[in-house]
Amino acid sequence: MAFKSLDDLILYAQSRPKRRIAVAAASDHHVLEAIKRACELKIVEPYLIGESKEINAIAASIGLKSDQYIVIDEPDPAKACVLAVSLIREGKAEILMKGMVPTAILLKAVLSKDAGLRKRETLSHFALFQTSHYHKLLGVSDAAMNISPSLSEKANIIENAVDVMLKLGISNPKVAVLAPIETVNDKIPSSTDAASLTLMNQEQHITNCIVYGPLALDNAVSKEAALQKGIHSEVAGDADILIAPDLNSGNILYKSLIFLSDGKAAAIITGANAPIVLTSRADSEMNKLYSIALAAAL
Amino acid sequence: MAFKSLDDLILYAQSRPKRRIAVAAASDHHVLEAIKRACELKIVEPYLIGESKEINAIAASIGLKSDQYIVIDEPDPAKACVLAVSLIREGKAEILMKGMVPTAILLKAVLSKDAGLRKRETLSHFALFQTSHYHKLLGVSDAAMNISPSLSEKANIIENAVDVMLKLGISNPKVAVLAPIETVNDKIPSSTDAASLTLMNQEQHITNCIVYGPLALDNAVSKEAALQKGIHSEVAGDADILIAPDLNSGNILYKSLIFLSDGKAAAIITGANAPIVLTSRADSEMNKLYSIALAAAL
Repeated sequence: MAFKSLDDLILYAQSRPKRRIAVAAASDHHVLEAIKRACELKIVEPYLIGESKEINAIAASIGLKSDQYIVIDEPDPAKACVLAVSLIREGKAEILMKGMVPTAILLKAVLSKDAGLRKRETLSHFALFQTSHYHKLLGVSDAAMNISPSLSEKANIIENAVDVMLKLGISNPKVAVLAPIETVNDKIPSSTDAASLTLMNQEQHITNCIVYGPLALDNAVSKEAALQKGIHSEVAGDADILIAPDLNSGNILYKSLIFLSDGKAAAIITGANAPIVLTSRADSEMNKLYSIALAAAL
Repeated sequence: MAFKSLDDLILYAQSRPKRRIAVAAASDHHVLEAIKRACELKIVEPYLIGESKEINAIAASIGLKSDQYIVIDEPDPAKACVLAVSLIREGKAEILMKGMVPTAILLKAVLSKDAGLRKRETLSHFALFQTSHYHKLLGVSDAAMNISPSLSEKANIIENAVDVMLKLGISNPKVAVLAPIETVNDKIPSSTDAASLTLMNQEQHITNCIVYGPLALDNAVSKEAALQKGIHSEVAGDADILIAPDLNSGNILYKSLIFLSDGKAAAIITGANAPIVLTSRADSEMNKLYSIALAAAL
């Protein structure tokens, strides 16, 4: 298993038993379109939790057949989230997906101490990119959840991303911790954090990966640029995962790859006991499908 | 004059009288290669200030003829910077360029209160991008100078960028102030700064442009993404200038466009009384030439 493209990810998800996906507040046209495609490709079997009448009406309008899904009537969106989470806790589903409900409400159910899906302290957003400008798939985190992560939260963000890569068969992934420079500068906290994370990896506090930073983005993805700067880390120019300094920079990197390059992406929330799919209306149809396939492949 | 590409910028610079460029600590192979190309294209006439023997030797080795430049012998790099700045103050040169000297030393000469080139409080890095993924040239600031600019520094950064666009014939440029979201959120300072800058523009504290923010990058460069979010600003999807939240994000955006997309860039330091060219070894030959052409076009 060595994925060269996001389409490989779909093929792999298809080769495995169907995963059961619990969609909270499922009466969302865009979400059900994506679910329909994933069902057609035999990747998932959905539980659709929410206002059952609306769900059935949307399903009928887009051609999602009633024998392809199980509907659970729960009109209250917050309760629908709790119900979806409980399906995963009970082993009845493996993937959680957000429908027509604010992210904060879904995450409240996920983070509940008694009835949630907590695994690590920090949940994070992870995106897997395919672009013609890089020689392999490229993980990027965190583009959507943690505004200004502390050092320990960054360590969690790395661990969450590494977990995904390991499950995709990339052993000992190379993790580039980004900063605007490739040297440690105490006026630039992203550079000192990167140095600390590199050391935490060397000291085996962060394991199963090779962490190196600070690296400017060019040094992380271009061997030539790294050599010109005299950087000799094996991560330089060959990163599997890019860790952004914060939400400002992670979000811009993510959107730059999609809207100002030819990037395609699969994205999930990681760090809980199940992958969480959280597509937005602005995502392309393919990117939504890739996200479900990534969750199903884990 | 409506530039569709960076090659247009070169043609425009060629159509004007040659600009005199003062290169501080000019004994740098890469810098002199770029100067040679700009001379061949009849864009500039260089003063090369530094160790004259070394300069002449490098020039001879790359085929830059001795009648194409004036050399001024000043082996001390800091003094070479002061001398280069004084040439501009005396009206003998219009562009300043950094050679083999740390940026901080060049900027010290530029920022000198008595003998410098100060215009605005804040100097900033401005890059003009060409990419197949956007329908026009796109300004990006600040990718290289201001680590964590305050609100008033961001206002200066906008004004510096607008000055460039106006001189390139783009009247009333559209300025998108980036954040990870398109709504104001007091936990995300880039979003509140963006809102303040928008209001400062509406109240005529920032003039000759249309400022709008907060905009996530997708909303700034894609009309479709902006409409899906219900954003109706004329800046959305049609920005001429992107203002990054800080150095982390600006640097990543700049490098993403070059190393993970097909972007080509011209870049200068703006905000002083003359454009400053500050290419790095890692820049491509063309990007160095574009940077000189941009400075010469202003």
